[in-house]
Amino acid sequence: MYSAKVRGVKDPMLDAKRLFPAEATARAVAVKLYETVRNLPIISPHGHTDPRWFAENKPFPNPAALFIQPDHYIFRMLYSQGIPLESLGIPQEDGKQSADPREVWRIFARHYYLYRGTPTRLWMDFALENVFGLRERLSAANADEFYEAIEKKLQTPEFLPRALFERFNIEVLATTDGAVDSLEFHQAIKASGWKGRVLPTFRPDAVVDAEFLGFQDKLKKLGEVSGEDVSNWKGYLAALRSRRAYFKKNGATATDHGHLTAQTADLPLAEAERLYQRIFSGRLQPGDEELFQAQMLTEMAGMSVEDGLTMQLHAGAIRNYNAAVYKKFGRDKGADIPSPTEYVRALRPLLTKYGNEPNLTLILFTLDETTYSRELAPLAGHYPSVKLGPPWWFLDSPEGMMRFRESATETAGFYNTVGFNDDTRAFLSIPARHDVARRVDCAFLARLVAEHRLDEAEAFELVKDLTVNLVRKAYKF
Amino acid sequence: MYSAKVRGVKDPMLDAKRLFPAEATARAVAVKLYETVRNLPIISPHGHTDPRWFAENKPFPNPAALFIQPDHYIFRMLYSQGIPLESLGIPQEDGKQSADPREVWRIFARHYYLYRGTPTRLWMDFALENVFGLRERLSAANADEFYEAIEKKLQTPEFLPRALFERFNIEVLATTDGAVDSLEFHQAIKASGWKGRVLPTFRPDAVVDAEFLGFQDKLKKLGEVSGEDVSNWKGYLAALRSRRAYFKKNGATATDHGHLTAQTADLPLAEAERLYQRIFSGRLQPGDEELFQAQMLTEMAGMSVEDGLTMQLHAGAIRNYNAAVYKKFGRDKGADIPSPTEYVRALRPLLTKYGNEPNLTLILFTLDETTYSRELAPLAGHYPSVKLGPPWWFLDSPEGMMRFRESATETAGFYNTVGFNDDTRAFLSIPARHDVARRVDCAFLARLVAEHRLDEAEAFELVKDLTVNLVRKAYKF
Amino acid sequence: MYSAKVRGVKDPMLDAKRLFPAEATARAVAVKLYETVRNLPIISPHGHTDPRWFAENKPFPNPAALFIQPDHYIFRMLYSQGIPLESLGIPQEDGKQSADPREVWRIFARHYYLYRGTPTRLWMDFALENVFGLRERLSAANADEFYEAIEKKLQTPEFLPRALFERFNIEVLATTDGAVDSLEFHQAIKASGWKGRVLPTFRPDAVVDAEFLGFQDKLKKLGEVSGEDVSNWKGYLAALRSRRAYFKKNGATATDHGHLTAQTADLPLAEAERLYQRIFSGRLQPGDEELFQAQMLTEMAGMSVEDGLTMQLHAGAIRNYNAAVYKKFGRDKGADIPSPTEYVRALRPLLTKYGNEPNLTLILFTLDETTYSRELAPLAGHYPSVKLGPPWWFLDSPEGMMRFRESATETAGFYNTVGFNDDTRAFLSIPARHDVARRVDCAFLARLVAEHRLDEAEAFELVKDLTVNLVRKAYKF
Repeated sequence: MYSAKVRGVKDPMLDAKRLFPAEATARAVAVKLYETVRNLPIISPHGHTDPRWFAENKPFPNPAALFIQPDHYIFRMLYSQGIPLESLGIPQEDGKQSADPREVWRIFARHYYLYRGTPTRLWMDFALENVFGLRERLSAANADEFYEAIEKKLQTPEFLPRALFERFNIEVLATTDGAVDSLEFHQAIKASGWKGRVLPTFRPDAVVDAEFLGFQDKLKKLGEVSGEDVSNWKGYLAALRSRRAYFKKNGATATDHGHLTAQTADLPLAEAERLYQRIFSGRLQPGDEELFQAQMLTEMAGMSVEDGLTMQLHAGAIRNYNAAVYKKFGRDKGADIPSPTEYVRALRPLLTKYGNEPNLTLILFTLDETTYSRELAPLAGHYPSVKLGPPWWFLDSPEGMMRFRESATETAGFYNTVGFNDDTRAFLSIPARHDVARRVDCAFLARLVAEHRLDEAEAFELVKDLTVNLVRKAYKF
Repeated sequence: MYSAKVRGVKDPMLDAKRLFPAEATARAVAVKLYETVRNLPIISPHGHTDPRWFAENKPFPNPAALFIQPDHYIFRMLYSQGIPLESLGIPQEDGKQSADPREVWRIFARHYYLYRGTPTRLWMDFALENVFGLRERLSAANADEFYEAIEKKLQTPEFLPRALFERFNIEVLATTDGAVDSLEFHQAIKASGWKGRVLPTFRPDAVVDAEFLGFQDKLKKLGEVSGEDVSNWKGYLAALRSRRAYFKKNGATATDHGHLTAQTADLPLAEAERLYQRIFSGRLQPGDEELFQAQMLTEMAGMSVEDGLTMQLHAGAIRNYNAAVYKKFGRDKGADIPSPTEYVRALRPLLTKYGNEPNLTLILFTLDETTYSRELAPLAGHYPSVKLGPPWWFLDSPEGMMRFRESATETAGFYNTVGFNDDTRAFLSIPARHDVARRVDCAFLARLVAEHRLDEAEAFELVKDLTVNLVRKAYKF
Repeated sequence: MYSAKVRGVKDPMLDAKRLFPAEATARAVAVKLYETVRNLPIISPHGHTDPRWFAENKPFPNPAALFIQPDHYIFRMLYSQGIPLESLGIPQEDGKQSADPREVWRIFARHYYLYRGTPTRLWMDFALENVFGLRERLSAANADEFYEAIEKKLQTPEFLPRALFERFNIEVLATTDGAVDSLEFHQAIKASGWKGRVLPTFRPDAVVDAEFLGFQDKLKKLGEVSGEDVSNWKGYLAALRSRRAYFKKNGATATDHGHLTAQTADLPLAEAERLYQRIFSGRLQPGDEELFQAQMLTEMAGMSVEDGLTMQLHAGAIRNYNAAVYKKFGRDKGADIPSPTEYVRALRPLLTKYGNEPNLTLILFTLDETTYSRELAPLAGHYPSVKLGPPWWFLDSPEGMMRFRESATETAGFYNTVGFNDDTRAFLSIPARHDVARRVDCAFLARLVAEHRLDEAEAFELVKDLTVNLVRKAYKF
């Protein structure tokens, strides 16, 4: 039904003008704009790469382990077309993982047509061609050849994590780290004398969300590592303050909060103390977990006012939606599904308390595009503290980015946004993702210029601001 | 205020490049793509044509009865501009229907400018020019001439239902039929020896929705035609299984479910039995009707796993919203209005039970575009059972189709969609509707090619897959 | 970080083809279409200008007081970037307002880059170039020069309110006026013999919304000015009828209703009487205020059926969201934030009672774009009474207007829309806003022509209908 053969071996896969408008006037502007930002350093203020890679600098394993098994964008699509996760060698909760990596790669190659029209395809093509020099579209026919070429290169010094980091021209890379994390790998990187700037980000979800697996253990751990008595509200807050200071000392400039909703609360002290007692003791009343998370967002905003850490809120994903997949394979297996997310009423307690603070930067992310023009841009276009994060996750795509610019800019302007986040655990996709974002911004600005809504000189300033200046400012790099 | 005169008599109304991008590069690609699919057979897996037409093969009546009175897209627009439905000869619940068809046609022609910018106008122009050879825009001036020309042709053998079916190059046409329907016309078609493939679709709404007018009678009828005892849960389910088998034997490959919401449930057996007892006896508790519909969606999914019938879910329309119109004219009079529809939480019980089944195909339709990128594409991009139906009803339009592709493709890919549905009771609009869908797909793919996001060779494969292969696969033709 | 220097002094800032599609075919059509509407009179059926300006015809004060301090679009953006409202001379509730206007203007000029990509920038450039002849982009460098040039011109007869009204070619300008307003300035305008048509609009929010500050006083005032006994339901309704008649006598053709939601109700008489007693006495039960507002929308629709005043509903803004800003600076300070708004279920009581009335025109506005294709276009495409207002507030922008046409037209058609509203209190922005709307309509129609979805001759008719005919008809001018 679907042949994978699509082009000759000789042509490069990636057209130099990809993602630019087809219309000639706008395209010409986009080309010129892109020329000025294509070689700017990559600033990656939010993502999920593993600091251990850069601390240890060991070779990445085989192509399947590098590209497929850690990337839920890739294997969820295969799963949606009936390919069992077992056959892809996705690690199982019971420790099993038996698939032959070469066979996994073959399955992927055979089904590469499934990614047509998706960002995964753009990122993958970029990595194959620009990182590995493989200028042919992946297919069943060349699967083995590609496998061997990649596997071979991964064993060379040029493909070690630090070498790639440098080759990718990464100025700074922020990881995401649990509140009780020792940050040992960040410290090892620093101690090693290597110049690569890999910073931690403070993510307290596991000690804030009482529904989290192992929550009580995490709380206990929090008390231990902070030396505070977390059996009461005051001590718990002190422990978090202490950990934030520890992260800051280790280079962190931001916190990150992944919540099901954007709900915040601002309880009177006595009520917050009682709530925490129930949370700590596990003697919960209905709604306590949600209320505690809501209260904690406001507390965290308050601590950001104190310590200056930029606050990121990622709201709206129902985690582990597919019970069978969760049971067998665990978290982050492509089975998180967004749901409608309200921000305006939800954020009011937090914004009433801290929204006008000059020292707060609160970056909002969404999986619900309806909020761009209705809620997020109006909030960002008014509150000094509120900024709009780039399109996230399912929306981190050419069309998604374009809709974000089209929907948010007219109310929020460009200067209440914060540039791009790659938000990825797929290290190899980082340059590709930033390249797509730069191209889409160029395309959007080029259309504004071609429609005489912006001067070309302004567009040149803007594209640089969007690529580096606004990121540096929002994340205080 | 609005003159209807718009073009000379000699030109064809329909430009060969209509609906393609204006931009020259993309347009050239679209033209080439369209050339490869324009003459492919029409596969119509979901619609509301009357099998009796093809069984009896009698001439269609006059132009008003053919084009206006059965088509709520057409008369709702006239009604919205103050034209009484009575004057259009819309059949009334008391049996009255008095308007002179020629006068009805004149009203329509006089107000044809109202449809500018709507898909109805595209479909109508296509039917007039391509089916009846009338190459001028309909207007007050040519209303009578057109009326007579159409009326005359309808009496000729070339315009009998079967002849049109063949001329339209329809490979298969699925109707929608109540669970207790005898399918006599489908059987008559088969018995006649005519080769046209007209298949039934199992639509059990009337025996599942206790708010349906005459629900108790329908239940009784279900018992009779199935020979099962529907006074208890087990017998009721057996009756439905029996009817599904009967439909399958008569050629059905799919079921269809029209619900106000996408809510599903998975009750323990004893609870389901008690719920059914209340439904059957009419001694309802608050919420029973909704809960029963929710439970039945899950039951139907289970039966689809057993018998392999593809399951379609059309959710989100508030039926018969305008009480006065409903009272006088009955159902399906252009007064159904969509409302916000949530899928992710609603479908969870069903998907938890059956979502990972390889043998289930669940096609989701929506009237709420906000769900494309937020809910539907993420579900289809993960679950093996979930596929996305094409833009439905108010969204079955060039802009609506384009937004669907732009919003859903990046997460769901093309291969978790199922091609086009015309979903129409207006037989004459079928070729026009499929033509619009093919053109819009060509336009979308052409833009991807012109922006170097897809190779041209891939686009040629894709456009054929979207036009015929994915439909055949999803509906098991 | 951001230099303000963007172009040479000699070029005009405003390109003649701005906002038209970059693609040449469509652009050529847009140019021709625009040529036919650019000089048509401005019809402004809904806005917030002050009738006193035209009654007294005094010079506008300095540039800061003219452009910045009354325009929350402008100062909310500055506030969002950390500039205190005090430093902009925004009037405070305690009467303070101390900033030097020239310094305010300098702050604005220095931050003019913030408006890139926003409609404010388009409007401002237009006013500077077309009204004041300042052909350079505003910046820190030319701030003083511009300030002086504008200040000087404002003292000349050509820049008095009436002279500008005539120069702007305004055919009719509707203001928005409280139900108990004396309309003295409207009467003074008429009495002065000046020909400018400035009409009032009946806005009863302050005597309908019991949460409004000073509600009880307003009710009392309503009784006084109408001479009715507002201590009971019947008298209250009579008072409103009386005020509507008074407005109509003074030229009003419409009412306007600003509600948090679109909720309507249709209570039995006795229940409505009891509800009113609680509202009047201030002995409220939970939900009474919302229910009363809901009931009053239906009552107002009934009165519109009687007296023929066109009814406008603006729903969905959470007013005074930022408590600190509200406390210090009061209402309308850029801190109103939209929230999700449902129309279909909400409007059902009203539409069931009056939706089919030929004498009702109910114009719906929204801040929630998700309702265009899902709710508003289906309602307008069916009900004779329902029409769609143009994109409102945060959506009154090129992208916002384009999305409205793209999302609503295919279901509602063009003829269930009502042309453009500028909805502004910034008098100088009126020509700019209408110009943007005309250009975007030309751009949209031009694309339809270039894609062969509309004949050029039809587009010429349509653009005129959208610019003047549909407005005149909907507002009965």
